[in-house]
Amino acid sequence: MQFATRLDAIETSAIRELFKLLGKPGIISFAGGFPDPALFDVEGIRESTAAVLASQPGPVLQYGATEGYQPLREGISRFMAAKGSTVASEGLIVTTGSQQALDLIGKTMISPGDKVLVEAPTFLATIQCFRLYGADLIGAPIDAEGVQVDALEQLIEQHKPKLVYLIPTFGNPSGATLSLERRRRILEIAARTQTLVVEDDPYGELYFGAKPPPSLLSLSDQVSGSRDWLAHCGSFSKILSPGLRVGWLVAPKELLAKATMCKQFSDAHTSNLTQATAAHYLTLGRLAPTLDKVRAVYAERAGVMAQALRRELGDAIEFTAPQGGMFFWARLSKGRQAAEFAQRAIDKLVAFVPGAPFYAHDPDPSTLRLSFATADVGKIEEGIGRLRQALCTTARLCGTGLSSPLYPGVTPAPLSARSSVG
Amino acid sequence: MQFATRLDAIETSAIRELFKLLGKPGIISFAGGFPDPALFDVEGIRESTAAVLASQPGPVLQYGATEGYQPLREGISRFMAAKGSTVASEGLIVTTGSQQALDLIGKTMISPGDKVLVEAPTFLATIQCFRLYGADLIGAPIDAEGVQVDALEQLIEQHKPKLVYLIPTFGNPSGATLSLERRRRILEIAARTQTLVVEDDPYGELYFGAKPPPSLLSLSDQVSGSRDWLAHCGSFSKILSPGLRVGWLVAPKELLAKATMCKQFSDAHTSNLTQATAAHYLTLGRLAPTLDKVRAVYAERAGVMAQALRRELGDAIEFTAPQGGMFFWARLSKGRQAAEFAQRAIDKLVAFVPGAPFYAHDPDPSTLRLSFATADVGKIEEGIGRLRQALCTTARLCGTGLSSPLYPGVTPAPLSARSSVG
Repeated sequence: MQFATRLDAIETSAIRELFKLLGKPGIISFAGGFPDPALFDVEGIRESTAAVLASQPGPVLQYGATEGYQPLREGISRFMAAKGSTVASEGLIVTTGSQQALDLIGKTMISPGDKVLVEAPTFLATIQCFRLYGADLIGAPIDAEGVQVDALEQLIEQHKPKLVYLIPTFGNPSGATLSLERRRRILEIAARTQTLVVEDDPYGELYFGAKPPPSLLSLSDQVSGSRDWLAHCGSFSKILSPGLRVGWLVAPKELLAKATMCKQFSDAHTSNLTQATAAHYLTLGRLAPTLDKVRAVYAERAGVMAQALRRELGDAIEFTAPQGGMFFWARLSKGRQAAEFAQRAIDKLVAFVPGAPFYAHDPDPSTLRLSFATADVGKIEEGIGRLRQALCTTARLCGTGLSSPLYPGVTPAPLSARSSVG
Repeated sequence: MQFATRLDAIETSAIRELFKLLGKPGIISFAGGFPDPALFDVEGIRESTAAVLASQPGPVLQYGATEGYQPLREGISRFMAAKGSTVASEGLIVTTGSQQALDLIGKTMISPGDKVLVEAPTFLATIQCFRLYGADLIGAPIDAEGVQVDALEQLIEQHKPKLVYLIPTFGNPSGATLSLERRRRILEIAARTQTLVVEDDPYGELYFGAKPPPSLLSLSDQVSGSRDWLAHCGSFSKILSPGLRVGWLVAPKELLAKATMCKQFSDAHTSNLTQATAAHYLTLGRLAPTLDKVRAVYAERAGVMAQALRRELGDAIEFTAPQGGMFFWARLSKGRQAAEFAQRAIDKLVAFVPGAPFYAHDPDPSTLRLSFATADVGKIEEGIGRLRQALCTTARLCGTGLSSPLYPGVTPAPLSARSSVG
């Protein structure tokens, strides 16, 4: 069977093979970007589902508008307003998770061969999603303050991209947060060069201490003309439940109309049952206390992971502790290969994702991503301990107290001092 | 803003403008393909949703497998087996409604410029969906027994299409059902010419009297090699609830793997809450009695619509009464234009869809589609009465008993003999 040529552009085997191994019994996973299900507000969701099926079963179970269930559009508009973003309910559409918002942007905007700028590294599924529409992706360098704006501006001038895709707040995989100054400059550049900027913001509510800078969407009111060149993807996946598959897309009017038309032929509309559930949930006043709890738990886990990484892996690894979100982005020292380390880690029943697939081009093979969201603090301690064991090629070498050949600077503790591998 | 070139291929304004008018107060609509919400088994769905949120809230609210929620895949496998189709749970993936199954087939299979054969007429959203992937659609002629196989075979030989898309049972918009003999021949042609056939089967369970012939999927066991060239789209939208957005795709192994990869970047996975709800519902034993009721109601409505059309519109309209599904496909006599008639009908507060947009090319402008699923028998009688009024250009002409200028052969009854317009 001959498949569409667009499939030639993508390659997913590396990550897929890794994820298959996650089913091994006893494994501790830092690999996925999954929220901890123990933090889901099951009672609030159950109450919401029951309420909408009791009060309006017809509309909830019938076909609905492609743009989204109107009470949810209004609820999202209020939710955004509380975060400082002015968006009318008609200025957004509901999507089947924010992954679909990305897909609709790709379908609506990207012709084969179009240049698209992304952070290097960026969200893996965005790379693949945009490549399926024929995008020629170009990576812009980042640092601890997010994308480097001078370099970004130069790349825009040079390549005249169809769009620029950014995760400005608690980036995936970078964990980095774009500074306020850089945010303003990006909006100015977007307006001046008439370049569409897509802000993906699934993690912005997951801050540990001080709130992050306002979203590009919030700031766009202050930068003349920038709103006309800004799209924004939001999601309930990280703050309420990924299983509902409810996200949203804010975009300039014409783009939103075209994206709606594309959605009509993608899945007609997002489930009314899950949309109505989310809409009802937003009226309960339960989201704020739930988020307070989630933030506290994730902050603790991030702190434990940072300490454990420093203690157990020492100078074998470099990282900047994130101030929110779900991820540590790290670099192995001395040019060591994260893919090889990941394989050794799987042997020790701990998983993470090597960083290379997060780069559109020119991957840094020494990078890796660790999620602290899913495992509790005990598992994090144990898992990082296993990572230290994985630094040894064999138990014999560790047992003799010899340095790991992979990371000669690190002396693993004796195996007997660690909890056993489950 | 410059949009993707693929959008140049599609045009939706005609239908969109019509659907906007459906919000007029008092309108009776035969336009949509919506099931009657009064027939939804709300109690069974409510019970299912509550059960899965009580017994397994974690998996239901967490991210899930792109292939689908495993208990649902198994439930669909059993459901298909009861209909005579042997499909392992690994041989299907769950999709966000069967619209997404079509989208994934387009994304996976169709390169720009690829030829695709469809029935003339066929499902409007398939035309647009495939065109967004660059398909060059070619229409194959149909009659009351579905697609004409000799012509189809010739078109396959001539165009070597990437795939053939068919709605063999109670077609949309045609209402036609492909004969058993033609089904066998299509499978033989698929296997011999190594041409992928996509069977879209959302309506097969909605039969009024005798069961329709087995699906192509069921028959493929009897035609050597045909299963390797057959995909099948199923849906709960017409038999349980469209608002859940749960459909499925059965396809040869490699195609299914590629479609799964595409789905990963389209919406990651279908809502686990709606998938688990459907899975639980299938275990309740409520689907069979619900379907019995739905079949009886739709059969009655189809009968009433057929009688009313013959009585009220006489020889102004030709149609073959369907044996199941949701639609009458009709042709105005004397080459009258359905688009003009539709506008007059809207003025009389009754809506239907003109047939032209259902053709990939060379539309027959005298055709139209009437759905009998949504309105009850009283509304059907009243709505068809309004259609007769719409045959008059003005009330004065009707009042004088003069023939309608649009359909000179029909003498409308006096307005006073009809129920008033809402």
